[in-house]
Amino acid sequence: MSNLDAVLNDLIVANRILAKEEVVDAYGHVSIRHPDNPKRFFIARSLAPDLVERDDIVELGLDGEPVRAESRPLYLERFIHAAIFEARPDVHAVVHAHAEDILPFGVADATPLRPVIHSGSFIGAHVPVWDIAEKFGDTDLLVRNMDHGRDLAHCLADNNVALMRGHGFASAARSLIEVVRMSVYLPRNARALQRAIQLGGSIKYLSEGEIAARAGGYRPHAPETWRAWEYWATKAGCRHLVGEPHAHEPKPKR
Amino acid sequence: MSNLDAVLNDLIVANRILAKEEVVDAYGHVSIRHPDNPKRFFIARSLAPDLVERDDIVELGLDGEPVRAESRPLYLERFIHAAIFEARPDVHAVVHAHAEDILPFGVADATPLRPVIHSGSFIGAHVPVWDIAEKFGDTDLLVRNMDHGRDLAHCLADNNVALMRGHGFASAARSLIEVVRMSVYLPRNARALQRAIQLGGSIKYLSEGEIAARAGGYRPHAPETWRAWEYWATKAGCRHLVGEPHAHEPKPKR
Amino acid sequence: MSNLDAVLNDLIVANRILAKEEVVDAYGHVSIRHPDNPKRFFIARSLAPDLVERDDIVELGLDGEPVRAESRPLYLERFIHAAIFEARPDVHAVVHAHAEDILPFGVADATPLRPVIHSGSFIGAHVPVWDIAEKFGDTDLLVRNMDHGRDLAHCLADNNVALMRGHGFASAARSLIEVVRMSVYLPRNARALQRAIQLGGSIKYLSEGEIAARAGGYRPHAPETWRAWEYWATKAGCRHLVGEPHAHEPKPKR
Amino acid sequence: MSNLDAVLNDLIVANRILAKEEVVDAYGHVSIRHPDNPKRFFIARSLAPDLVERDDIVELGLDGEPVRAESRPLYLERFIHAAIFEARPDVHAVVHAHAEDILPFGVADATPLRPVIHSGSFIGAHVPVWDIAEKFGDTDLLVRNMDHGRDLAHCLADNNVALMRGHGFASAARSLIEVVRMSVYLPRNARALQRAIQLGGSIKYLSEGEIAARAGGYRPHAPETWRAWEYWATKAGCRHLVGEPHAHEPKPKR
Repeated sequence: MSNLDAVLNDLIVANRILAKEEVVDAYGHVSIRHPDNPKRFFIARSLAPDLVERDDIVELGLDGEPVRAESRPLYLERFIHAAIFEARPDVHAVVHAHAEDILPFGVADATPLRPVIHSGSFIGAHVPVWDIAEKFGDTDLLVRNMDHGRDLAHCLADNNVALMRGHGFASAARSLIEVVRMSVYLPRNARALQRAIQLGGSIKYLSEGEIAARAGGYRPHAPETWRAWEYWATKAGCRHLVGEPHAHEPKPKR
Repeated sequence: MSNLDAVLNDLIVANRILAKEEVVDAYGHVSIRHPDNPKRFFIARSLAPDLVERDDIVELGLDGEPVRAESRPLYLERFIHAAIFEARPDVHAVVHAHAEDILPFGVADATPLRPVIHSGSFIGAHVPVWDIAEKFGDTDLLVRNMDHGRDLAHCLADNNVALMRGHGFASAARSLIEVVRMSVYLPRNARALQRAIQLGGSIKYLSEGEIAARAGGYRPHAPETWRAWEYWATKAGCRHLVGEPHAHEPKPKR
Repeated sequence: MSNLDAVLNDLIVANRILAKEEVVDAYGHVSIRHPDNPKRFFIARSLAPDLVERDDIVELGLDGEPVRAESRPLYLERFIHAAIFEARPDVHAVVHAHAEDILPFGVADATPLRPVIHSGSFIGAHVPVWDIAEKFGDTDLLVRNMDHGRDLAHCLADNNVALMRGHGFASAARSLIEVVRMSVYLPRNARALQRAIQLGGSIKYLSEGEIAARAGGYRPHAPETWRAWEYWATKAGCRHLVGEPHAHEPKPKR
Repeated sequence: MSNLDAVLNDLIVANRILAKEEVVDAYGHVSIRHPDNPKRFFIARSLAPDLVERDDIVELGLDGEPVRAESRPLYLERFIHAAIFEARPDVHAVVHAHAEDILPFGVADATPLRPVIHSGSFIGAHVPVWDIAEKFGDTDLLVRNMDHGRDLAHCLADNNVALMRGHGFASAARSLIEVVRMSVYLPRNARALQRAIQLGGSIKYLSEGEIAARAGGYRPHAPETWRAWEYWATKAGCRHLVGEPHAHEPKPKR
């Protein structure tokens, strides 16, 4: 299996995991940058992530348009991915989703979303909230073109996650496994924080030093990261698409 | 397959989706107006929506009574559908259900239910609360006749959804796909708003302009709408009952 | 099938439904009075309700002891059932369970549990809270003998449900279908009320007249009641144990 | 089947139950002390608990290191188990997990976690919160060595459960069945308390006497304890791995 085959296989697994873990439903999508051409990325055609098969994956440029003629409808919001890949050379995978439990943090202004549990550390110390209305006024809230996408990417800046007001979130990471993991634990961290606030008193967030210590120790193919990937794939019914940990290490750039 | 066959097939799918997505349980129902005779509509006999098959669908007039002799029991509350179809020629499909997470908004008076997430926009800017007791005093809260139904339809007016105090909701739309989608996202919007209120501070609702922009761009057979219908049908185990998107376009009226 | 066969069949179905609907888990139980001998009742031996088969059902007297030699362990808390059957000749079926969402109302004193949704009406206008410590001091909270059971039955009085502080609830009804339905909707009503309180403002409870109107119109074998029983049995995988509605009407007493 | 076979079988069952009951997910682990050698214990290699088979179980010493050469990766946090077994000769089984609903009690300081329902009594009257930062400053929050583990065990002291700030919990008991049961009911008790606080007013916790009465009456192989073990194993799909109650009684020490 070529490296590209492995990448596309992983992208199918990522789609299924995000569906099973209820990060996406009919809506939401995940993409991965082309391993050999940083100006291109892979994402499914317009289809619910849980139903994605190999033939459903299309290759897009950093303008969000397909690099080969494509008659099937594409995700309207593919510009989220294009604009983040354009702005962030360090990013190799992107998720956009509407996971329900993060939504309150995008519309209520009293409590910023911050890491409060160790598995939530990867969202980073600061999670900005992007409001499409600030620049574009009354829209249907969808990221329909590169202008929208670039404004979102500008708000994301160097962070790992941006909330999108009244809509969802976009997350970005150095690897597909990392962006999936972050997207699964993002709503869990949101729920823990929401309930902690209900309990009252002062909240002990992860310190900047703790967030840095966790980020510093992170390796996308460490056994403890792989453990989750393998487990989630099993739950999602696609363990057979998952190879061995080291087969998935990205090839070093030449 | 005639257009009528397709319509009834879709109604079965709608029943199953609403059950799987926990909008209905043993109770709740969905109806569709007859495509060729606006004075009639289709709905299941008294049966849990998840169990509905083709033979369970009956044809009723706008008085809520069957147009053919029918020995099987009917839904007591079929008058909800009859009265809304009577009052609203623009409406082609109606749902009544008790989806749990909307119930608090019908009994607590501090917070009106309003769209706070983009997928909730279709409930519209204003969601009235109908209280059967205002006109009918102490009842068993059921919409048992046309008087009850017409009072509810009067409260619904030109809106898309009315909450029913201590009971549930009624939603109305131009198409079956639209009313199902609205009914699935209604409780999700309710949960997001409920939790946003718990977080505190001011809440950023969708603006009137945003709600209008989303309603204006809505097409019931757009790929992104179809994507949800296909996915939900797959989850509900009835993907085989779903044809291709364009087969489901309503025939233009002659 | 004799009437007794039908009764025991129904008891198996009730066990499975209560498990599937998460009213009971490993703990909790349901009983039915002997149709021909009001001084006896049927209940499972010590076993998780979801696993109950015909051979697991035992016949107990109103002292909570088996009427035939029985070597298998029995539920420790069978005295809940015995004492309620003893005190309430009108009651033909009893449930005891720990359904999670009613527990807060047994330990926080600010908000009595009352019907706030129409399907919750059957719990009645008043739901007393029984605290075993008031009479018996420090115990393991279990209803281990007839003294405990009679104190609980005394607190229940003429009501349909009593909460048990720090423990769960006991519900009592004229028929098995009714006590199952009440026990399924009890936690749902609790959740609706809990969330309504979080929304704030004043709460519109069902009026006494509405509760009476619903109770007055209730028939345990009406099509709309049967609809839920049939649906829940299907979900619980035991639709095949359910006959036709009228086969289950209790024989009139001669 | 030798006693050791039965112990390892039980450990597999415990892994599966904790996964099915959502106490653990990809992360979290359960261990049991060697029945014949108190200086050793059994735990899985680095693997999601739901996937654990007999070959995945390894034997570790009280330093947290394998007693036989082992090439497969081990849980990073196995020192939680080692340190508790070292400090507490009375303890025969340990669980560490991140069950979501206990997390708020580890980060909000207003409400200590205490038993409020009878099934939560086994967590004991006092549940300390261990904060790794107090002694070790900014870390990745993981218990990576015996120093970390001993500090946690010191905080646990004679209690049954310690919360770990921003991370999860560790629970310890005299038997595997007991530690599993406690770990399943710990989040349930947390949810009941969280919701009771939302209802407001004063909270009626279990009294010290009630907690003692329940602990005093506890026998790990009583029918009512076995009932839950059998039921949970059935739900988790491994009823076939469970023998008869008395086969699992620990052999008396000679």
